[in-house]
Amino acid sequence: MAKLDIIVREVGLRDGLQLVKSFVPTETKLAWARAVAEAGVPEIEITNFVPAKVIPQFADAAEVAKASLSIKGPNGPKICALAPNRKGAENMLLAGVRNVNFVLSVSEGHNLSNVRKSTDASFAEFENVVALRKERPEWKDIKIQGCLATSFGCTIEGRVDPDRVLRFVDRYLTLGADEITLADTVGYAAPSEISNLFTHAVRLAAGKPVYAHFHDTRGLGLANVYAALEAGAAGFDASTGGLGGCPFAPGASGNIVMEDLVFLLEKEGLRTGVDLEKYRKAREIAEAALPNESFYGTILRAGLPKGFTPPSRLMAAE
Amino acid sequence: MAKLDIIVREVGLRDGLQLVKSFVPTETKLAWARAVAEAGVPEIEITNFVPAKVIPQFADAAEVAKASLSIKGPNGPKICALAPNRKGAENMLLAGVRNVNFVLSVSEGHNLSNVRKSTDASFAEFENVVALRKERPEWKDIKIQGCLATSFGCTIEGRVDPDRVLRFVDRYLTLGADEITLADTVGYAAPSEISNLFTHAVRLAAGKPVYAHFHDTRGLGLANVYAALEAGAAGFDASTGGLGGCPFAPGASGNIVMEDLVFLLEKEGLRTGVDLEKYRKAREIAEAALPNESFYGTILRAGLPKGFTPPSRLMAAE
Repeated sequence: MAKLDIIVREVGLRDGLQLVKSFVPTETKLAWARAVAEAGVPEIEITNFVPAKVIPQFADAAEVAKASLSIKGPNGPKICALAPNRKGAENMLLAGVRNVNFVLSVSEGHNLSNVRKSTDASFAEFENVVALRKERPEWKDIKIQGCLATSFGCTIEGRVDPDRVLRFVDRYLTLGADEITLADTVGYAAPSEISNLFTHAVRLAAGKPVYAHFHDTRGLGLANVYAALEAGAAGFDASTGGLGGCPFAPGASGNIVMEDLVFLLEKEGLRTGVDLEKYRKAREIAEAALPNESFYGTILRAGLPKGFTPPSRLMAAE
Repeated sequence: MAKLDIIVREVGLRDGLQLVKSFVPTETKLAWARAVAEAGVPEIEITNFVPAKVIPQFADAAEVAKASLSIKGPNGPKICALAPNRKGAENMLLAGVRNVNFVLSVSEGHNLSNVRKSTDASFAEFENVVALRKERPEWKDIKIQGCLATSFGCTIEGRVDPDRVLRFVDRYLTLGADEITLADTVGYAAPSEISNLFTHAVRLAAGKPVYAHFHDTRGLGLANVYAALEAGAAGFDASTGGLGGCPFAPGASGNIVMEDLVFLLEKEGLRTGVDLEKYRKAREIAEAALPNESFYGTILRAGLPKGFTPPSRLMAAE
């Protein structure tokens, strides 16, 4: 496996599906994930280990997770999943996934609304997740990522204090997080805010990767990617065609578009490992499965600039 | 008039209409321009002084230009227009517009295809335009902007050498340009290419403004804006709803979306002078006039972040 310069992580199967009302069949989810992996995406957030009564879309979380472990692609993929609590994390580990993404919101109001806990209670829950490492020998080396939702603002509380975000980064790291994600959950951030916060968070993380999870709700998703890239972000979340639109912003894409993200990074000379032409299949599968959802993105329609060969394609040819 | 931190220039009436086949009535064009000005946009490229047989859309260039001079808004607006040659510039001056935007392409192939001249012949034409300053006393102080199309790549020639772009910047300045525009005509650029070229061009221009004209054909328009902003660009072209889609990239917006550009700049703390709510009227006029065209953009649908007041709105309240 050739070395990649930057990590892109597919979150279409998790964040993209989160608000989709129609249940996507398990086999379709897996076909989509397979196409994503075969295009070279090195990391896939495969599902959400949340109770089925909270989000019925993820009723098949264990089944999807188990089956995804046999998915192969040129760059892995590493399979991770989201868990909002210890129970979810335990179910994930029992399904065989070894990369746990835990999430809490920096904004107290958003955390209460999202997981019905104070942020203190969520950090206590995070400690319980970390404690799972000691429960079984095969869980000793699980990787735990601490995700901070609403790091750049909140639809309930408005502005979020960057110092509070950094205190939460520190708290995650102290409690045992291997990786951090800063999320602009509602698409509020502008590039220099991203630049400032990532610069400080990357320094705090002292070598541990800091991921960026941005939404394109107000059109600044890729501008923010560039700012985070300059500030040392290690990886970027994105979804097939930007799936994951916010119900409060019709017509505005939700997650940033994986295809356009890959184009940006490759045009910057960075090897993502992703072959955009092969990724087209992932998009076709998702679009066919979700005929009522909007898919965004321009690069697959506009085509690559004349004379430009993405570094990842050159890598594949080596 | 309060001081603005950065200039946004509306090009919907020129670049936006360039590929639109249906003729937009003169009065509609003017109503659109009025709404743009009333929203606070400080500069409008009002039309293109190109022969009507080349682009019939601009058959009313002189009429639109003349009438636009009486348009008033909180920040001017300054009215400019495009001219591809001396004849066009002369007609513009006769119509009373005193800000001439001249354009040539850095790529030899694109320039031949666009204006049927070599770049050397275009620079000779530019000298003829500059010479107009001496023809009449009232033309002595006209401002002339030199625009460099295909500065970041060309659909005919592919890569464009940045050193050649900088030589062309120098040539424009030496011949008497007051301002420079670097244009990513076909949406090929990535942010660090923008950053590099703008940094050098701004230095070369030694205090004369360098404008950015970007297209969003491949989704990187606003990422490129942020890079140009950091590198010292003085102004940004954009169009209502991103009007100006490329016929070779259906579904991809053409120019960057004025509304989203304004949001980016204001979220960065920069006063553009534009009130987004008032700009909505410009969009409504353009959408009503062009029912078959695609309009893009997210901020007017998604709404401003909770708790965020744009600096220009604060300025208006002072």
